[in-house]
Amino acid sequence: MRRISVFGATGSIGESTFDLLMRQGGPSAYRTVALTGGRNVARLAVQARALRAEIAVTAHDECLPLLREALAGSGIEAAAGPAALIEAADRPADWIMSAIVGAAGLAPGFRALRHGTTLALANKESLVTAGPLLMAEAARHDARILPVDSEHSAIFQSLLGEDLSAVETVTITASGGAFRDWPLDRLAGATVAQASTHPNWAMGQRITIDSASMFNKALEVIETREYFGISPDQIRVLVHPESLVHALVGFRDGGMIAHMGMPDMRHAIGYALNWPDRARLPVARLDLATAGSLNFHNPDPVRYPALDLARQVMDIRGLAGAAFNAAKESALDAFVAGRIGFIAMASVVEATLTQLSAGSALGNPATSLDNVFQMDAEARRIAEGIMAERKV
Amino acid sequence: MRRISVFGATGSIGESTFDLLMRQGGPSAYRTVALTGGRNVARLAVQARALRAEIAVTAHDECLPLLREALAGSGIEAAAGPAALIEAADRPADWIMSAIVGAAGLAPGFRALRHGTTLALANKESLVTAGPLLMAEAARHDARILPVDSEHSAIFQSLLGEDLSAVETVTITASGGAFRDWPLDRLAGATVAQASTHPNWAMGQRITIDSASMFNKALEVIETREYFGISPDQIRVLVHPESLVHALVGFRDGGMIAHMGMPDMRHAIGYALNWPDRARLPVARLDLATAGSLNFHNPDPVRYPALDLARQVMDIRGLAGAAFNAAKESALDAFVAGRIGFIAMASVVEATLTQLSAGSALGNPATSLDNVFQMDAEARRIAEGIMAERKV
Repeated sequence: MRRISVFGATGSIGESTFDLLMRQGGPSAYRTVALTGGRNVARLAVQARALRAEIAVTAHDECLPLLREALAGSGIEAAAGPAALIEAADRPADWIMSAIVGAAGLAPGFRALRHGTTLALANKESLVTAGPLLMAEAARHDARILPVDSEHSAIFQSLLGEDLSAVETVTITASGGAFRDWPLDRLAGATVAQASTHPNWAMGQRITIDSASMFNKALEVIETREYFGISPDQIRVLVHPESLVHALVGFRDGGMIAHMGMPDMRHAIGYALNWPDRARLPVARLDLATAGSLNFHNPDPVRYPALDLARQVMDIRGLAGAAFNAAKESALDAFVAGRIGFIAMASVVEATLTQLSAGSALGNPATSLDNVFQMDAEARRIAEGIMAERKV
Repeated sequence: MRRISVFGATGSIGESTFDLLMRQGGPSAYRTVALTGGRNVARLAVQARALRAEIAVTAHDECLPLLREALAGSGIEAAAGPAALIEAADRPADWIMSAIVGAAGLAPGFRALRHGTTLALANKESLVTAGPLLMAEAARHDARILPVDSEHSAIFQSLLGEDLSAVETVTITASGGAFRDWPLDRLAGATVAQASTHPNWAMGQRITIDSASMFNKALEVIETREYFGISPDQIRVLVHPESLVHALVGFRDGGMIAHMGMPDMRHAIGYALNWPDRARLPVARLDLATAGSLNFHNPDPVRYPALDLARQVMDIRGLAGAAFNAAKESALDAFVAGRIGFIAMASVVEATLTQLSAGSALGNPATSLDNVFQMDAEARRIAEGIMAERKV
């Protein structure tokens, strides 16, 4: 029986993963090693009981008593904290979903690779902050990373049976987010609530705001480079308001292979779960006659400065991805907290990168996760400093 | 050096094949065995000299003297007539383009399979009239058939690395042809000149008229069933005015892989020529931001009765494809000659199938090409009779 673990089981991706696991047989089809979550320990316990997990881990020490209580009598172990997450990742499993949001998701996924697992990678930050390290670790242990972002799953699927050397371009699409059609001069006044509505995808709040700013797409561009080894100048972004075409690969013979489908993360999750098979999945089928029209335009660099920042980050590489992501997380925290405005987020990230570029460390390749975490901490400190000084 | 032959070298597909062969090194890259053509023997001779062919064959006996003259001093053999075409197909080659238009293209391609060749199949009628025979012959001799129609090449490319058992739907697109936006009541009065203009593709006159009537798409639906073994109820047709998405394959996990590109037959030809590699081809790249919008709608069965006829043909199978194609060719001849109107073509084909259905032979599987040719002749005779009686 296939051994599986889910990191970030109670988030949006984690819940969809749980849904698919249960539909595909639950505990009679999978031996669940570990499930991890955040503060929603009641839900984590429900999942752990349903899948008969060996262990359930909450990221927060103070949640451990509640988790223990919720698991009472089940025989399921309970644990808490970062070290417990790593310990859970160290328990061998054949398939592991890495769906913890943010930089916190990096370490458990990295550790799991040591066991030659198949890592379904939904955590965007892993490849952005530590792409070369992660890919090398996977290669070293004959582990496999499968992308779970819909765009990267789409690229992966479009490349099946193809030779990477024949690839000319890789295009990922972006809905354009909540403010796609807003007048530019209104963006500065956009509220958190306004930024938290996505035209097509049902996702968590942070990633929805990152869609509105296109920081999410910026991360995905960097991921595309790191995962597929595609040169930055071959990677394009197209605004596609319908979110039905997820990615397109252009080849040197003029042919283009595209991946389409309704915007439902369960497709990409189910694809990674069942790969190399395509299992029947409970997602709506795309009917193009009903859709009627698919529209595309180039992203406006003024509306979406995050995309140019991603280009800078790819040029520098090294620890720039870690700095970029950390500064973005700080700025996003500040926006959500009402401390800065929507368009200030990109300014904060840009200023952080500029300040770090003055030093020498930004372009250095990471040799360990510690390098990444140090840069992450430094970038957050700088970003906070910038925000404090500006008093935005 | 790779041995190649081109059947139908001076037609639209043949000229594009010649263009690619010359760009990819011409006689220094390929050893050309045979080139065949119709009445344009001057052009055939130019191609044969450029590629240093062993033999050039015209389909028409009366054209032989002119062909001989045009090849004088070149050392290239000249021959004419159906038997000479078969003899040319019997000369072993590694890659053969089958691009003779109409039922006449069937026999040479079929014969070439005997030598275990790779047959690049642009002749639509081969699979429509004799699909099971052709596929069995290819399997028997370990020959390979590669589709050259843009739609089937698109399906083929979309299926790379995929398991056919996971396929839920195959959709081919249609531009809708010259009369896509005409009021229905004007179709009866459509002229040959009006039917001979295609919105997107530069092709021969007959196939352009077949696009306006969607008989071309009807043939392609049948080809899709025969070549890929896809069940008829899984095959869809979508009107897509821009002709940029050529085919889409839907899988049971809700994912859809599509093939896109500018409408340029050199892509499909070049793909078949270089398969399994993708060579750099001189075709324009598709820029979706420039295209702006891709539109789709279901075909109107009243405007395009040929599509329902294709469903009937697939239900009957056996020799129905041969009868369908022959009746269609007769009706098309009559339309081009001004003997019947545009919408009468479908009526003639339908009446021919109805009359043949009353006998018992239509559903019989072909056991040899002779069965196919006999049904072809019978269907033409019946179609002519119907047209004579109606005096349309």
